[in-house]
Amino acid sequence: MRLNPAMAATEPPPVMEARRWIADATFPVDRPLLNLSQAAPTDPPPAPLLQAIADIVLTDPSAHLYGAVLGYDPLRARIADTWSTAYGGNVHRDQVAVTSGCNQAFAAAVATLAGAGDNVILPTPWYFNHKMWLDLGGVATRPLETGSDLLPDPEAAAALIDDRTRAIVLVTPNNPGGVEYPAALVAAFRDLARTRGLALVVDETYRDFHSREGAPHDLFADPEWDDTLIQLYSFSKAYRLTGHRVGAICAAPARLAQVEKWLDTVAICPNGIGQRAALWGMEHLGDWLAGERQEILARRAAMEDGFAALPDWRLLGCGAYFAYVAHPFDLPSDAVARRLVERASVLTLPGTMFGPSHADGGSGRAEATLRIAFANADRDGIGILFDRLAQVTRDGL
Amino acid sequence: MRLNPAMAATEPPPVMEARRWIADATFPVDRPLLNLSQAAPTDPPPAPLLQAIADIVLTDPSAHLYGAVLGYDPLRARIADTWSTAYGGNVHRDQVAVTSGCNQAFAAAVATLAGAGDNVILPTPWYFNHKMWLDLGGVATRPLETGSDLLPDPEAAAALIDDRTRAIVLVTPNNPGGVEYPAALVAAFRDLARTRGLALVVDETYRDFHSREGAPHDLFADPEWDDTLIQLYSFSKAYRLTGHRVGAICAAPARLAQVEKWLDTVAICPNGIGQRAALWGMEHLGDWLAGERQEILARRAAMEDGFAALPDWRLLGCGAYFAYVAHPFDLPSDAVARRLVERASVLTLPGTMFGPSHADGGSGRAEATLRIAFANADRDGIGILFDRLAQVTRDGL
Repeated sequence: MRLNPAMAATEPPPVMEARRWIADATFPVDRPLLNLSQAAPTDPPPAPLLQAIADIVLTDPSAHLYGAVLGYDPLRARIADTWSTAYGGNVHRDQVAVTSGCNQAFAAAVATLAGAGDNVILPTPWYFNHKMWLDLGGVATRPLETGSDLLPDPEAAAALIDDRTRAIVLVTPNNPGGVEYPAALVAAFRDLARTRGLALVVDETYRDFHSREGAPHDLFADPEWDDTLIQLYSFSKAYRLTGHRVGAICAAPARLAQVEKWLDTVAICPNGIGQRAALWGMEHLGDWLAGERQEILARRAAMEDGFAALPDWRLLGCGAYFAYVAHPFDLPSDAVARRLVERASVLTLPGTMFGPSHADGGSGRAEATLRIAFANADRDGIGILFDRLAQVTRDGL
Repeated sequence: MRLNPAMAATEPPPVMEARRWIADATFPVDRPLLNLSQAAPTDPPPAPLLQAIADIVLTDPSAHLYGAVLGYDPLRARIADTWSTAYGGNVHRDQVAVTSGCNQAFAAAVATLAGAGDNVILPTPWYFNHKMWLDLGGVATRPLETGSDLLPDPEAAAALIDDRTRAIVLVTPNNPGGVEYPAALVAAFRDLARTRGLALVVDETYRDFHSREGAPHDLFADPEWDDTLIQLYSFSKAYRLTGHRVGAICAAPARLAQVEKWLDTVAICPNGIGQRAALWGMEHLGDWLAGERQEILARRAAMEDGFAALPDWRLLGCGAYFAYVAHPFDLPSDAVARRLVERASVLTLPGTMFGPSHADGGSGRAEATLRIAFANADRDGIGILFDRLAQVTRDGL
């Protein structure tokens, strides 16, 4: 079969690969599967939102029909207002577009920036769908190795820039690393990007679960923010709307005019029900979301306590939905992840899925680490996780 | 602002451009706007489907959460069964993927086939989002000029193929031309594509409104169909689900494994509510859809009658949702379309949006023609359309 070579060379989706590991597996009745692979709520939206969605379905005919390519105007306006307040800045609705999820926001933003032969800087470990999108378009990834704190260094980034570099991408709170980037670090990357004429893409999918109160960075307080910043957001986690596919891009109106071309061609418009559900969530679920955040922060604390009691494991980063941890086994992480399914009924994703692998010039950390999407588990589940990890640490894999 | 040059060179979305023409316009009370620009139902789904969607929202938690990248299994299976019966062939569920609309199906399919520097053959006039997607990826379009019947010629197509040609794209019933390709013509293109090792992409978005009973082509009856054919479909028109974004690709499982990479990165999964709504439509709305088809066929007949009574206009193609017509004015079609808004409160799309323009090597037909999305108008609306066209034909623009 004839294939576009860039497509053929792109790795398959890790989450679907991990689903295949468990598709044919059977688990002991007293040790059911603990699935910590995907960053996804396991429960549907809260009951009042479900009722609101049903009401929209029955009473708002326009929700079923084509809408504007760049999204439902009231949602764009609400995002602009909410961001302006939350970040102490000035975001106008013409600087906001709605997308069919945050992966699409990234793809659309990068499509406006880079083509085949250009390059983009990604701190390691990276979010695999970012790497895949660059690969699919023939855009080279410049890996920016992070230290043991998983924080990227602007000076190291500066050394990677050449005349085909188009953007630096930050994810904070980080996927897969869990680490929250300090506001000053984000600002330093903005300064670097601006000085070198690059875009700074900041993916804040997990922002609602940040451990600090207040704005996680002050980039929007800069009146000229949109000359450099492209901010991405997801409604999937906050309101448990993963299956509705709603995300957002904040960027310069002139860039959004380019985004509009891409989205028109790839999506026509975001789906109408999901957009109205996201708006209803923003309007009504602030207190509920604050409670969700407290619960996730409690789970995070349980993860930190659990690994503190397992000294053979080393927690490199922990926050929002993820723990990123060095395992104690003399095996590469992909083998560790598969054996954890077999021996402990625990599904995590191996660091090799977040590259670069040692064979591709990585430091070896990909082989040494696992990502645990702990937000999927309640505190009982986290207790079970550590019982099982303790046992395989004792007995070996 | 730094932009990807392929992005910057791509034309903006015609439908959004046309929306801007009317955004600030006011229309006389006795001559309200008749919007015949977009191929879209103006009414929401029928009441039983609305109720079914509301029930899904309240009773199926999984509809709100991430699903499989290639779509909801029961919908894939239902498409496979329905297609096997409708086309007298054998389509297996592993040969079906669900996408977030048919534009996305096209983008995903082409992404598996062609990269920058490759080329794809599009009959003219083309569907603008197809052209835009090729432009965005740096894939060259080879225009295949059609005759006065708007049908493409396989021999002319053969003469355009070179070693970078990756696919031939057919749209039947055609957008924008309205014309239904004879089954033998579609088969001749399949033979050409197979002989030359190309993919044949057949977009059947408007299939449910075909004027012939039975299968519109016999390509699926070939047990080896998936070595060449990639078939695209949309649920937007049949069940008035435009705002839900649900489409489909039928292709070889090995190609869908590549499609899965692209969709994972761009969409993660199609939205869960829309997929279940499409399935409910397939299960329950067969009779209702048959009635919709009869209504659209009656509107088509009204269009043919109307232009027969307007001899200065020449109807080149008419079917499914579209009439493609040569106007009588000594002006290029983009000027004609804008003046029709001002003088007749009628919004159509100019042939220049379906290229190629004369400046780009076109025959001049783009400047001479308009696309009228007549399915948006009821028969009273079609009567009003012809009254207004008769008046501007008499009075001039």
